[in-house]
Amino acid sequence: MNFEQNTKSQAYLIKLKEFMNAHVYPLESEILKTNQQLNETSDWHQWQVPHQIEELKVKAKEAGLWNLFLPDKDLAEGLTCLEYAPLAEETGRFMFAPEIFNCNAPDTGNMEVLYHFGNKQQKDQWLTPLLAGDIRSVFAMTEPDVASSDATNMEATIETSGSNLILNGKKWWTTGLGHPNVKIAIFMGLSNPENDKHNQHSMVLVPLDTKGVKIKRMLSAYGDFDAPYGHGEIEFNDVIVPKENLIMGLGKGFAIAQGRLGPGRIHHCMRAIGAAERSLELMIKRGLSRVAFGKPIIKLGGNLERVAKARMAIEQARLLTLHAAWKIDTLGVKAAMTEISSIKVVVPNMLQEVTDIAIQMFGGAGVGSDYPIASFNQMGRILRLADGPDEVHMGMVSRLELAKYK
Amino acid sequence: MNFEQNTKSQAYLIKLKEFMNAHVYPLESEILKTNQQLNETSDWHQWQVPHQIEELKVKAKEAGLWNLFLPDKDLAEGLTCLEYAPLAEETGRFMFAPEIFNCNAPDTGNMEVLYHFGNKQQKDQWLTPLLAGDIRSVFAMTEPDVASSDATNMEATIETSGSNLILNGKKWWTTGLGHPNVKIAIFMGLSNPENDKHNQHSMVLVPLDTKGVKIKRMLSAYGDFDAPYGHGEIEFNDVIVPKENLIMGLGKGFAIAQGRLGPGRIHHCMRAIGAAERSLELMIKRGLSRVAFGKPIIKLGGNLERVAKARMAIEQARLLTLHAAWKIDTLGVKAAMTEISSIKVVVPNMLQEVTDIAIQMFGGAGVGSDYPIASFNQMGRILRLADGPDEVHMGMVSRLELAKYK
Amino acid sequence: MNFEQNTKSQAYLIKLKEFMNAHVYPLESEILKTNQQLNETSDWHQWQVPHQIEELKVKAKEAGLWNLFLPDKDLAEGLTCLEYAPLAEETGRFMFAPEIFNCNAPDTGNMEVLYHFGNKQQKDQWLTPLLAGDIRSVFAMTEPDVASSDATNMEATIETSGSNLILNGKKWWTTGLGHPNVKIAIFMGLSNPENDKHNQHSMVLVPLDTKGVKIKRMLSAYGDFDAPYGHGEIEFNDVIVPKENLIMGLGKGFAIAQGRLGPGRIHHCMRAIGAAERSLELMIKRGLSRVAFGKPIIKLGGNLERVAKARMAIEQARLLTLHAAWKIDTLGVKAAMTEISSIKVVVPNMLQEVTDIAIQMFGGAGVGSDYPIASFNQMGRILRLADGPDEVHMGMVSRLELAKYK
Amino acid sequence: MNFEQNTKSQAYLIKLKEFMNAHVYPLESEILKTNQQLNETSDWHQWQVPHQIEELKVKAKEAGLWNLFLPDKDLAEGLTCLEYAPLAEETGRFMFAPEIFNCNAPDTGNMEVLYHFGNKQQKDQWLTPLLAGDIRSVFAMTEPDVASSDATNMEATIETSGSNLILNGKKWWTTGLGHPNVKIAIFMGLSNPENDKHNQHSMVLVPLDTKGVKIKRMLSAYGDFDAPYGHGEIEFNDVIVPKENLIMGLGKGFAIAQGRLGPGRIHHCMRAIGAAERSLELMIKRGLSRVAFGKPIIKLGGNLERVAKARMAIEQARLLTLHAAWKIDTLGVKAAMTEISSIKVVVPNMLQEVTDIAIQMFGGAGVGSDYPIASFNQMGRILRLADGPDEVHMGMVSRLELAKYK
Repeated sequence: MNFEQNTKSQAYLIKLKEFMNAHVYPLESEILKTNQQLNETSDWHQWQVPHQIEELKVKAKEAGLWNLFLPDKDLAEGLTCLEYAPLAEETGRFMFAPEIFNCNAPDTGNMEVLYHFGNKQQKDQWLTPLLAGDIRSVFAMTEPDVASSDATNMEATIETSGSNLILNGKKWWTTGLGHPNVKIAIFMGLSNPENDKHNQHSMVLVPLDTKGVKIKRMLSAYGDFDAPYGHGEIEFNDVIVPKENLIMGLGKGFAIAQGRLGPGRIHHCMRAIGAAERSLELMIKRGLSRVAFGKPIIKLGGNLERVAKARMAIEQARLLTLHAAWKIDTLGVKAAMTEISSIKVVVPNMLQEVTDIAIQMFGGAGVGSDYPIASFNQMGRILRLADGPDEVHMGMVSRLELAKYK
Repeated sequence: MNFEQNTKSQAYLIKLKEFMNAHVYPLESEILKTNQQLNETSDWHQWQVPHQIEELKVKAKEAGLWNLFLPDKDLAEGLTCLEYAPLAEETGRFMFAPEIFNCNAPDTGNMEVLYHFGNKQQKDQWLTPLLAGDIRSVFAMTEPDVASSDATNMEATIETSGSNLILNGKKWWTTGLGHPNVKIAIFMGLSNPENDKHNQHSMVLVPLDTKGVKIKRMLSAYGDFDAPYGHGEIEFNDVIVPKENLIMGLGKGFAIAQGRLGPGRIHHCMRAIGAAERSLELMIKRGLSRVAFGKPIIKLGGNLERVAKARMAIEQARLLTLHAAWKIDTLGVKAAMTEISSIKVVVPNMLQEVTDIAIQMFGGAGVGSDYPIASFNQMGRILRLADGPDEVHMGMVSRLELAKYK
Repeated sequence: MNFEQNTKSQAYLIKLKEFMNAHVYPLESEILKTNQQLNETSDWHQWQVPHQIEELKVKAKEAGLWNLFLPDKDLAEGLTCLEYAPLAEETGRFMFAPEIFNCNAPDTGNMEVLYHFGNKQQKDQWLTPLLAGDIRSVFAMTEPDVASSDATNMEATIETSGSNLILNGKKWWTTGLGHPNVKIAIFMGLSNPENDKHNQHSMVLVPLDTKGVKIKRMLSAYGDFDAPYGHGEIEFNDVIVPKENLIMGLGKGFAIAQGRLGPGRIHHCMRAIGAAERSLELMIKRGLSRVAFGKPIIKLGGNLERVAKARMAIEQARLLTLHAAWKIDTLGVKAAMTEISSIKVVVPNMLQEVTDIAIQMFGGAGVGSDYPIASFNQMGRILRLADGPDEVHMGMVSRLELAKYK
Repeated sequence: MNFEQNTKSQAYLIKLKEFMNAHVYPLESEILKTNQQLNETSDWHQWQVPHQIEELKVKAKEAGLWNLFLPDKDLAEGLTCLEYAPLAEETGRFMFAPEIFNCNAPDTGNMEVLYHFGNKQQKDQWLTPLLAGDIRSVFAMTEPDVASSDATNMEATIETSGSNLILNGKKWWTTGLGHPNVKIAIFMGLSNPENDKHNQHSMVLVPLDTKGVKIKRMLSAYGDFDAPYGHGEIEFNDVIVPKENLIMGLGKGFAIAQGRLGPGRIHHCMRAIGAAERSLELMIKRGLSRVAFGKPIIKLGGNLERVAKARMAIEQARLLTLHAAWKIDTLGVKAAMTEISSIKVVVPNMLQEVTDIAIQMFGGAGVGSDYPIASFNQMGRILRLADGPDEVHMGMVSRLELAKYK
């Protein structure tokens, strides 16, 4: 047992931190301000990406800090899930950082789907520009009219008609839909109701400019549209795409989703840990610099205990996630289901709690936009729902636990 | 001991509920939609109040459901704090309802200040139009540059110059500043640094169109500007007002603040309880209507336990608040400090927790704007900071507890 | 709405407090010491009640502080549930106090059963000596071999044979079984399996010296036998009693149990609140008197916040319980099921939490026997199981909550 | 980074598990019963160790499963802290197991003190028989009259008088004092008040049969004396020992205590994790085997969520502890202070919580003595106090956290 990252991972982390220090943090508040100016409307048609992001993307690519998430030596840096984990954490410290390194959700997950399950043509057409950071993508799974926590509830349909597929249905909380560069959706729907329940759905590539695709509205979370990314509601009305757009095969939707799961969970959990670390750091600095009742506020009442609780919670969450990453790398996703489900519950709850503490230490500034803490808090809250609510993942953990006794 | 409200309070509650059912709930989603259309910009200069609100205000006044919060028989209905409490709860069920009955914060608190501590001229000039619902007001206390949890930190200054007062300083999280009808601020500042620390500050009436008053920006909370109300940042640069604008006298700021405290806490806590009840109601209806894994989701996993926990938490919070109201009415604010501080901690935390549960039951819809739950959650969170953070109020409770043993 | 107890209740409380101050508290540590000396063995045959208890019983009877729990004007003081509540709280401050006033569980519940449902002969034979404090009783319900949280699981049987009833079965966690004066059990068993599931069981009076009744062992809780009271395991092997010992009628077991419920819950919850108040008091005194790191320990870290949390939790639990008592008095047990189930969950959890905080403040002394806090903590923990676990009562609360929407 | 234990540790774990399965678990209930029969009195003079323990000690020694905790290749197996960790976990699954392998507290810590800081004569006289399992030892540190959470409060004194040391003072919660084989105490007291506060205390070896040593009483925790081990109160009245009994030197008390800390924390935390695993296992088996309301109780309400929460909490606590062990092994105790303090807080709280859940699933049986869960729960609770309360260790964590920003 050895808790030290290997030299490869360490080297990338050093390089990434240098990049963040040199190029990203100094621009942080400027980017946020630019973003606020550009995107104050809820009309997503007008949303723009702050120009600094595109400039930093070029720099990141030059620095060899590009597509770090992809475990391929030719297309990327060939980092394992475990090697990439601390890098994901680092990018989680600033909301806009992942895109700079082409490592942002949901594109990473979508690229993985194409990488592992796409055919050559699909890769050429969509994976290549995604890896280049030229376009963005969405994953259309959750539906407004059914309890999507049970994915088998999905009602959107995929019908075969000659050499085409006809798609119908409503999707929402489709993340990234507001991005000006978004071009392609991976659409999941019911194609084979005659099969058993985990082989009824398929995934299909749908260019967003296809006829019948309609972005109905962008959704605010806690009143925030998260422009220029944002979650949207989208309708598919008799959308026709060629059969070539089917990924892997009919009825393979859940198999693909399963494969997409593991590493994606590591990524977003590590980013959440980065966000928690950042929040703790900001909270301590704030608490040391402000005085009330004759003392730095960090020393008042139970505040120091809260610092300790935050530290202990973060450490535990990180170790749990790194262990899950190691297990995915060494034994595969299937053997790591308890771990993958556990981090999905533990980490966002930890982030919600740590940021709640931090907000309390900041007072009003904590919920405002001058600091990233409110956004991180909201991210933690939403991650408790996204990709299945806590309860579904606890269900998985307990099911596997009980199975030990059969 | 008797847990039944008196007939007067019951009669008003029946009337209020009828009004809500007949006039308010049917317009709820329309008002929200109108508000979203009118106020999608963060530029507060353009904010408007949905026309339905003004129409409903007229109706409410006609129905004798106006200024219910004010314990004066001539100017209002003469309801005690305890009698008003269940009415405040009812208005808390819809974010826009309090204004309809001219019972919204911070105007209620400001009207109380003027009612109890204002002189005749001040009442004529400002209380009268506030009671009529013709103008709105703000309370400028919290400051960006100091830990305002310790109110004695306040740095804004009030200097006497002949027959005038000169005000300087920065304030923020000034609630209601974005409202198009807002006309007047109660400004609190340091006027008598030579006095002991609870007699150094004063309150002064400052019309917002006075020279030197500058609304710097509106502040978003969790990315939401809460238009057309909203919290703002405001600067006072050599603002000159006549001495007549001083409330009560120099150095009386904390004495006035103290008096303002008690009933205001009851009001916002009862509204928060109404918001929690509403959230629980919505959550149960949602949970009964959606199916996952073959069952209504309310029956899955620990969901029913969460319903019970919400019910038990709400009941306790309500009884605690009603008891505090009773104690204010019978023994006065000073004798009820433990109770007033306790509800300030208990109720917002309860609301945050109940709405968190509800959000989880709603999935994505829970954080969106189609339901009021995310707003209620945010309200709960912010109330944990507003008017002093939890920690300060727990400090008060423990201080009084220890005093029993001296 | 009025939160002041009526003068009758207040007068009894004053008298009771005077009695506690004059006669009970001064003997507290002596009684505990005597008890420890008398009852250090786990062999219940040798257990004795400290002589001071019997002496104090005489004094309490003389003072008119006897059977206060019983709402009968002739047999007792005719106090309502709500009037008795603060008295129960007062007795809860010392583990041995309730017996002094003949107000201890499970005798109070058993006396209520006999009072409400017993016939004249049963009352003469058993209620009279119980009311006199001459004998003690037990309630034999929980069974070792089935999940007793579902009372319909009960497997002990009651068969009719001519003019007799034949009882068979095993019971455990039968409280009070070790008491030297215990004479009679109320036995609950399956008598009418042909009925619907809430009319299958009956209650039968069984003198403990009946042939076939065998006390198998006393049970320790956390290693403590709680001598001379204690919980026991008991077997009924072909125990024959005359039909006259049947309470109310065959199949009436659950109806009686239901009636027994309400006031009993108020009693033990109020005692638990008294225990919590006592613990908080002791904790503050301890915290003020001991110094570490240069400060009274009560002022270290988050300790003052914990004082506030304890205060707020106790107040809420008390109001919830008083409200439940009021509802039982005014609307009856059936209308108060949500309240009765809620306090069953809220109060023991509160006691467990408050005493846990107190233990932490006391250090090692907190878990030892020099202070009552460890016993109170254990009582809180066990009350979360006794008379149905938390989960069953939350199930009741949520069921009634959902019923509002049908 | 590699989460797999090395082959040496794995091999010992296999051997240990085989031993536990073959020799320990089959005797578990017999040992408990024997112990209960032998030790039902609170008079510690009569306490005996169940004969099975001595028999198993012989077997364990033969099997090479002896003194596994000691990182010395000649005297023991030379296992590092990290290599020993999973073995400690395994022994934690049964309360009496650690003694069987001569790995029980406080002897392990005392042996470490002698091993690292004792001179040859001290080792010959005391370490040798302790390593042989022939005698037992205690550590006399905590005092009844001062807040011992601040160790510098210690009032017991060590005076030099010629070639002797004279000891005076009171100690309590001295664990293991009731053991029939206990022979030696390590006494800590104030010897050099003239020094700075971390160099004022010394440690001295005191045979328990020395004149002036008086065991005043054994202390019950939650009413349980934990015979034949137990915690005791002990007085030292002008106890005279030769200067040779001083460990390391005058004023070195805290330096020794510091060195004793790290590995000991790993040991007891890993045992606590074993206890938690055992409790979870027992709870699931119970929950699967009992039926209520038509279902195995494990599937009722929130029970499955509690299983998941227990699993997630245990995994996190284990990883945190293993990481701390690794850091001690690779960087030393001083560099691992955050980790060592964190596990001291996290693990006992986790054990308390997991066992509380398990107790609730077991009902009355959960608090009784037929299952080890109540003991484990009590252990968790006491570990939150022993060796410094949670709050002191959170203080350490936050202090180190703040130090990063100076």
